Amino acid sequence: MNDALPNPLAERLQALVRVLRRRRLDAALVFGEANIRSLVGVVSDNGCLVVTPSRVVFVTDFRYVPMAHRVAPWLETVELARGVTFAKAARKILGPVARLGYEGAIAASRYLSLQASFRGAKLVDVGDDVLSLRAVKTVDEIARIAAAEALNDEIWARARREFRAGMTEKDLQREIRAWMNALGDGEAFETIVCAGANAAECHHVPDGTVWRKGEPLLVDMGVKLDGVCSDMTRCLRPRGRSADAEYGRVYDLVLEANLAAIAAAKPGMTAGALDKVARDIISKAGYGPAFGHSLGHGVGYEIHELPTARPKDDTVLEPGMLVTIEPGVYLEGRLGVRIEDLVLITTTGCEVLSRSAK
Amino acid sequence: MNDALPNPLAERLQALVRVLRRRRLDAALVFGEANIRSLVGVVSDNGCLVVTPSRVVFVTDFRYVPMAHRVAPWLETVELARGVTFAKAARKILGPVARLGYEGAIAASRYLSLQASFRGAKLVDVGDDVLSLRAVKTVDEIARIAAAEALNDEIWARARREFRAGMTEKDLQREIRAWMNALGDGEAFETIVCAGANAAECHHVPDGTVWRKGEPLLVDMGVKLDGVCSDMTRCLRPRGRSADAEYGRVYDLVLEANLAAIAAAKPGMTAGALDKVARDIISKAGYGPAFGHSLGHGVGYEIHELPTARPKDDTVLEPGMLVTIEPGVYLEGRLGVRIEDLVLITTTGCEVLSRSAK
Repeated sequence: MNDALPNPLAERLQALVRVLRRRRLDAALVFGEANIRSLVGVVSDNGCLVVTPSRVVFVTDFRYVPMAHRVAPWLETVELARGVTFAKAARKILGPVARLGYEGAIAASRYLSLQASFRGAKLVDVGDDVLSLRAVKTVDEIARIAAAEALNDEIWARARREFRAGMTEKDLQREIRAWMNALGDGEAFETIVCAGANAAECHHVPDGTVWRKGEPLLVDMGVKLDGVCSDMTRCLRPRGRSADAEYGRVYDLVLEANLAAIAAAKPGMTAGALDKVARDIISKAGYGPAFGHSLGHGVGYEIHELPTARPKDDTVLEPGMLVTIEPGVYLEGRLGVRIEDLVLITTTGCEVLSRSAK
Repeated sequence: MNDALPNPLAERLQALVRVLRRRRLDAALVFGEANIRSLVGVVSDNGCLVVTPSRVVFVTDFRYVPMAHRVAPWLETVELARGVTFAKAARKILGPVARLGYEGAIAASRYLSLQASFRGAKLVDVGDDVLSLRAVKTVDEIARIAAAEALNDEIWARARREFRAGMTEKDLQREIRAWMNALGDGEAFETIVCAGANAAECHHVPDGTVWRKGEPLLVDMGVKLDGVCSDMTRCLRPRGRSADAEYGRVYDLVLEANLAAIAAAKPGMTAGALDKVARDIISKAGYGPAFGHSLGHGVGYEIHELPTARPKDDTVLEPGMLVTIEPGVYLEGRLGVRIEDLVLITTTGCEVLSRSAK
């Protein structure tokens, strides 16, 4: 590390060094693209960050070296020679080590190549520790994610103006995608559009189902912008005399759970306690088994990050964390409702980044 | 396996059983989404196919069970119980085994869980064998990929009509993406658009660079359709007196290499020999070092499949294989030319699926 040059992510890197000390590791190797990006700001799908308590070296192939120099001039970058594995390159940089951290998500073949290059070393999975470092966002990351969420709101408003009964789920999905490509950097995940009872499948893939007049519609969407993701779910609720009474009751219940969790979210509480606020409301109304997923997840460079707000999770919420609040109720063959907002944990409570009407 | 019901992919599954026998394996576990799809036709991002010489069992979570029953009624499908790992579920199905195949691409954490559940078993990486089974396409797969390639041609024709000097690379990319979303199922990979000298970077990410009048343009694009990918690269070559003479020479050379490889491609030759046909032409003209990548790759459920046409590769081409033929020359800071067609190896030679003018 050249400390004379500014590294805007130095704090997160220092936190990783504390992980190394706590877990008594000589070094850790970070391969995950979003993990590398979150630690040194460099984007490469073929790189390895070699981290010791006193040194950080980025190894990547020739295609990415100039970009790394430009984006992170403070970072020691080494070109991976042709035909050499990352494991061998890291071994050359580190010499022999006793305990080496790695991410459990790397390919088994890469794990075996680490075992071969670091013979005798104890390999320790620090994948969750590295992901945890990304749970609290930097000021810059928060600004970018808030901008992506605001664009997502705008796209939802624009797409809705084009929505007409008689269009298929695929048509509606295309409408949203077209705006995401025109105004942002495309989809953060495959846009979910469910007409009528299709919303009962929480991972429904939009198909040729026609959205009929008076039927509810569920849309789960997130635009990608400037390298980060956004996420929001809205349900269009039919009004008037023909509207289904059970749908209305479930919608009100899910909205109540969503609003109660937003009112409760604050630093110091656990992610599990936040899940419980929403889940208790849905359970007391008798729909507990119909809320089959977690309350929410973090959002950042990837669409699913830490923290995970799920039953009994003991992660303590901290200012700077982002988490979705998305209770849902799914009744097979009949209906599905999910209402999802992205919130930022602040020093006193939370700020809702999704501004679309519910 | 219920042999009373038709399995359109039975032949590929039998080929996998032959791999088990050849490598003396009691069973193999297949986790890769495209691999599972290619073997049993089921799409699931959270499944495990347990294959023995006499039995095939698909394990997946509750979300995908109904779909598996519908798509592959002949297949024995087992629901993964909550909190149970695939490794444990497979161990319960198989009992103790001596030699177990797995894909080297699975996560290290999953590999370790296989080690724990199959204590004492020898784990054997059969990832390349499984990928090889996908290299020869079924009649149905060929028809779908040909349809995707034809749509790709149509999108290229439509997008070109909208292209104007003064647009940025991002504008041009958006134009293509919009057509891909409107007429197909989106991009098979991030569309590459390079104006002028940017084409010298073979992995250039489209940016705000303006495409100026009289400058060449390189576009590498593939639309996704019906679950499969397409792939093609075209260069718009400036004409007239102002056109760069070196660009013209390089363009003619790359086209010559592309056409020579197409004329040579036939079953029985190796993928390495096919690469050599194109590479020799470029090398003899003195541009060998400027052709820094392989001649081509297979295309199917994923954009990069086997075979890989690269120097010295000894894979024998067979009827039903698909391979791109994409020679290129890249001169840093000056120019880049790549011309790519997708071809189908037939019983006598090859059929070019890309029909756009070169």
